[in-house]
Amino acid sequence: MTHQPAITGHVFIAASLDGYIARTDGDIEWLIPYSEMGEDHGYRAFSDSIDGIVMGRGSFEKALTFSTWFYDRPVIVMSRSLKDIPGPLASKVTIASQSPEAVMQDLAAQGMRRVYVDGGKIIQSFLRARLIADMIVTHVPVLLGSGIPLFGEQEADIALRHVGTTSFPSGLVQSKYEIAN
Amino acid sequence: MTHQPAITGHVFIAASLDGYIARTDGDIEWLIPYSEMGEDHGYRAFSDSIDGIVMGRGSFEKALTFSTWFYDRPVIVMSRSLKDIPGPLASKVTIASQSPEAVMQDLAAQGMRRVYVDGGKIIQSFLRARLIADMIVTHVPVLLGSGIPLFGEQEADIALRHVGTTSFPSGLVQSKYEIAN
Repeated sequence: MTHQPAITGHVFIAASLDGYIARTDGDIEWLIPYSEMGEDHGYRAFSDSIDGIVMGRGSFEKALTFSTWFYDRPVIVMSRSLKDIPGPLASKVTIASQSPEAVMQDLAAQGMRRVYVDGGKIIQSFLRARLIADMIVTHVPVLLGSGIPLFGEQEADIALRHVGTTSFPSGLVQSKYEIAN
Repeated sequence: MTHQPAITGHVFIAASLDGYIARTDGDIEWLIPYSEMGEDHGYRAFSDSIDGIVMGRGSFEKALTFSTWFYDRPVIVMSRSLKDIPGPLASKVTIASQSPEAVMQDLAAQGMRRVYVDGGKIIQSFLRARLIADMIVTHVPVLLGSGIPLFGEQEADIALRHVGTTSFPSGLVQSKYEIAN
């Protein structure tokens, strides 16, 4: 019997009302106005509460296009193809090619307890592996019509428990759900 | 210059958090518990406010499987293939094979002003034709993983204006949006 360390995955993400986290080419410009309205959507409090961030190669490469690296926690990029991390980020970013379960066990062994799970495909694979404890989903008042979906195919229902919802003058609607089963 | 009658389409629909209004086979059993909790989700007030209901063949055939016909307004089934309405419903249901625009013009000529637009494909085609004034979308706390989607492909963004959000002890989160452009 192996001891399971108490490590949990947490989602904090925005999506269009039709469920896309980015346009098909990864563009998130449509989100920018909402981050510049002076509203506190809780991202700071959330990111202060986590020990590390797991993301996919797509999210990582998107983050590289920004002028600043804005993650202040260790970032783990889930990728079987990525080999090199650009020099300035070598101390902040590691590459993991294992399964979600194995990655979480490694992070637990490093002392992490709360992991931010980011990006559509990675969230989907962690949900399927039942590694997500809760999700804060913020719906943006727009229908994009196409893009990169937040959620994906699953074989079985995942029951959620609604914890609370807050709406903002900008029109964002933010709901927190715990994964129920 | 043709006179455009003031007729508007309105959506009132429940979807899983991942955006499905029914399972792939049309099953909506997963919704039933929420309608039996004694919560007032506003369906009665909404249906009292509308003059007629436009739906697709799928929604109509689903409605036929229920033991009672629970629509108390004229129902228009958008279908090019459907030919016959079962006898007892002949006075309550008509078939329309025209475009969404033409159907709405016909309904306006009949004196209708507010039309309930129901069913995934029909909502999508009315949204694309800019015939929807507002939508009340109720998110159910479950991820189904597959099914009939509420929203679909569009060529351009549709901007929404968030009117308000209410959450219920059952975990339902109901948001009203006006179509902004």
